[in-house]
Amino acid sequence: MQVGRLPEWVYRDCADPSQPHRQRALDRQNALTKPTGALGRLEALAIDLAGLQATDCPRARLAPIIVFAGDHGVAVHGVSAYPQDVTVAMMANFAAGGAAISVLARELGSRLEVVDAGSRAASPITGTVSDKPRCGSRDFSQYAALDPQDVAFAFECGKRAIQRAMEGVPDLVILGEMGIGNTTSASAIAAALLGVEAAMVAGNGTGLDAAGRARKVAVIDKALSDYGLRNSDPPAEKVLAAVGGLEIAALSGAIIVAGQAGLPVLVDGFIVSVAALAATKLNPSCRPYLLFSHRSAEDGHRRVLDALVARPLLDLDLRLGEGSGAALALPILRLACALHNGMATFAEAAVPDRAL
Amino acid sequence: MQVGRLPEWVYRDCADPSQPHRQRALDRQNALTKPTGALGRLEALAIDLAGLQATDCPRARLAPIIVFAGDHGVAVHGVSAYPQDVTVAMMANFAAGGAAISVLARELGSRLEVVDAGSRAASPITGTVSDKPRCGSRDFSQYAALDPQDVAFAFECGKRAIQRAMEGVPDLVILGEMGIGNTTSASAIAAALLGVEAAMVAGNGTGLDAAGRARKVAVIDKALSDYGLRNSDPPAEKVLAAVGGLEIAALSGAIIVAGQAGLPVLVDGFIVSVAALAATKLNPSCRPYLLFSHRSAEDGHRRVLDALVARPLLDLDLRLGEGSGAALALPILRLACALHNGMATFAEAAVPDRAL
Repeated sequence: MQVGRLPEWVYRDCADPSQPHRQRALDRQNALTKPTGALGRLEALAIDLAGLQATDCPRARLAPIIVFAGDHGVAVHGVSAYPQDVTVAMMANFAAGGAAISVLARELGSRLEVVDAGSRAASPITGTVSDKPRCGSRDFSQYAALDPQDVAFAFECGKRAIQRAMEGVPDLVILGEMGIGNTTSASAIAAALLGVEAAMVAGNGTGLDAAGRARKVAVIDKALSDYGLRNSDPPAEKVLAAVGGLEIAALSGAIIVAGQAGLPVLVDGFIVSVAALAATKLNPSCRPYLLFSHRSAEDGHRRVLDALVARPLLDLDLRLGEGSGAALALPILRLACALHNGMATFAEAAVPDRAL
Repeated sequence: MQVGRLPEWVYRDCADPSQPHRQRALDRQNALTKPTGALGRLEALAIDLAGLQATDCPRARLAPIIVFAGDHGVAVHGVSAYPQDVTVAMMANFAAGGAAISVLARELGSRLEVVDAGSRAASPITGTVSDKPRCGSRDFSQYAALDPQDVAFAFECGKRAIQRAMEGVPDLVILGEMGIGNTTSASAIAAALLGVEAAMVAGNGTGLDAAGRARKVAVIDKALSDYGLRNSDPPAEKVLAAVGGLEIAALSGAIIVAGQAGLPVLVDGFIVSVAALAATKLNPSCRPYLLFSHRSAEDGHRRVLDALVARPLLDLDLRLGEGSGAALALPILRLACALHNGMATFAEAAVPDRAL
């Protein structure tokens, strides 16, 4: 799998979740004053977090949000309902506090960092971290979207963002993205990694009409042929260079580093899930660290989730990105932890347990 | 429909949601810095709350939780995995802070009131409100579960609880329940109101085995015949008296009064949904005030939700009751309001909107 262009650390194993902590968490769940299993997926969440955090007291309190932004040359083909300038304008809106993810971060008490992993902005945008090898990817209908060294740079950008987040000793991290045209790039990556036609994974993005979606599908299918991505199981590095985006590659790098650091990742919607799929292809040991927040209204998300054997927590017809779906799921994780840590046991409360 | 045994107020109309406030909320959603509709069901939630609260600034901050508890004579037939004493023991656990709903109330900053609407407790339980006409329902395989005046008392109990909650000027109310055997009563009510066999709505409750579920189904089917509930559309008052429970009737009363007071109700799982179904049969004008929180793992819930044309927010395999599913959905409402009220518009943020 390794084709030599990505940093060596990408392939280092993440630690397995702690089995003793998982077992103790399961035992505790079964002793709490509720019918066995009655808290459903919240019980599994608490047990998963206990194992990943290697603790008897799982937490989801400190959950910084990192949004990686990038521009996409392919946007010139009318594959988005919005003009390309929106990427940079929205980055400023994130930083100014007016975007959905800004409001959610405030409400949740989460630190929000916006990383310019590759927008077209010529100079740094106030309130964001600029960490990019180039201003946007190339139009992949004409040239490879990125050079291999751009992809490597983006992985390091993801690593640096997680390292900054780790300074706050977080309980988990929320990853999001912004980039006009990036559902086209993500759909192309998904099609290549899943070995399917573009029409199976390319949806309406932020609100394309039928003609726009047809253009998107055609551009992707042509690229899959042009770059030899219709072979079985093309290397993820090659796919990311051919049709990727800098923010997507940064997300893949961030996901792998987070897993290596023992930090659970709350995955947002379609685009972050595609980055997660690429990350698990490169380094399958990061998979246990991924918690899936929501099922997007974007068509291709279901297939990507199936490939990751992931069942998200929420299904609320969201298709915004920015990490917004993951932020919306954070309270579920917090309450799962509070229930796990705070409920009384049958013995403590002197409640009769079922006859077994 | 009115058969004369319930208080006159039950049949008074609830006000329609404010159409001007709904329209202004919709206009605002379409002006916020996100693709049209990209926040999916959160947009609809904010618009619904704006209409129900008749405000331009919908809120879900103050959300008191009321848990109605009751015992069920039918529990002697082994239709629950837990002994009947658990009802009273869990009421004490609610009040002492050790139960799931106690933990959730603390985390959410919600006031929790536990109303003994009809448990077997001979004397009041510390930290709960005792408001009951009798100690538990009769075994409905032998006698009608309740007298008509018991049902009327329970409706008044529900009304009194909402009136107490209104003193805190709440934004909405969360309703829950506790009662060993109450999935059997709720399944019987649902079967009668929906005109289906018991097997279509009776599930495994808190964890019955197959033999236990077969007993439950047999007890319900016999009661449907014994009390003449297989006719089309039996009056809800009659159904509640024949196979009801005091906490379920109190919930139906609370739901109607809340609607009449303009107070949105966040409905919990199977049992509260059955109480809501009975409430809407008695007074259809309360339906718009019902927000549905989660789809229970209990088999019959889907049919009850379908009859109510309800699509819950969460689907997390919960089957606990207590109002726990509704409490878990409260952060979604709060964040929907925060996004509605706090995001910038395209004009405010100087973000280019799509070409229309």
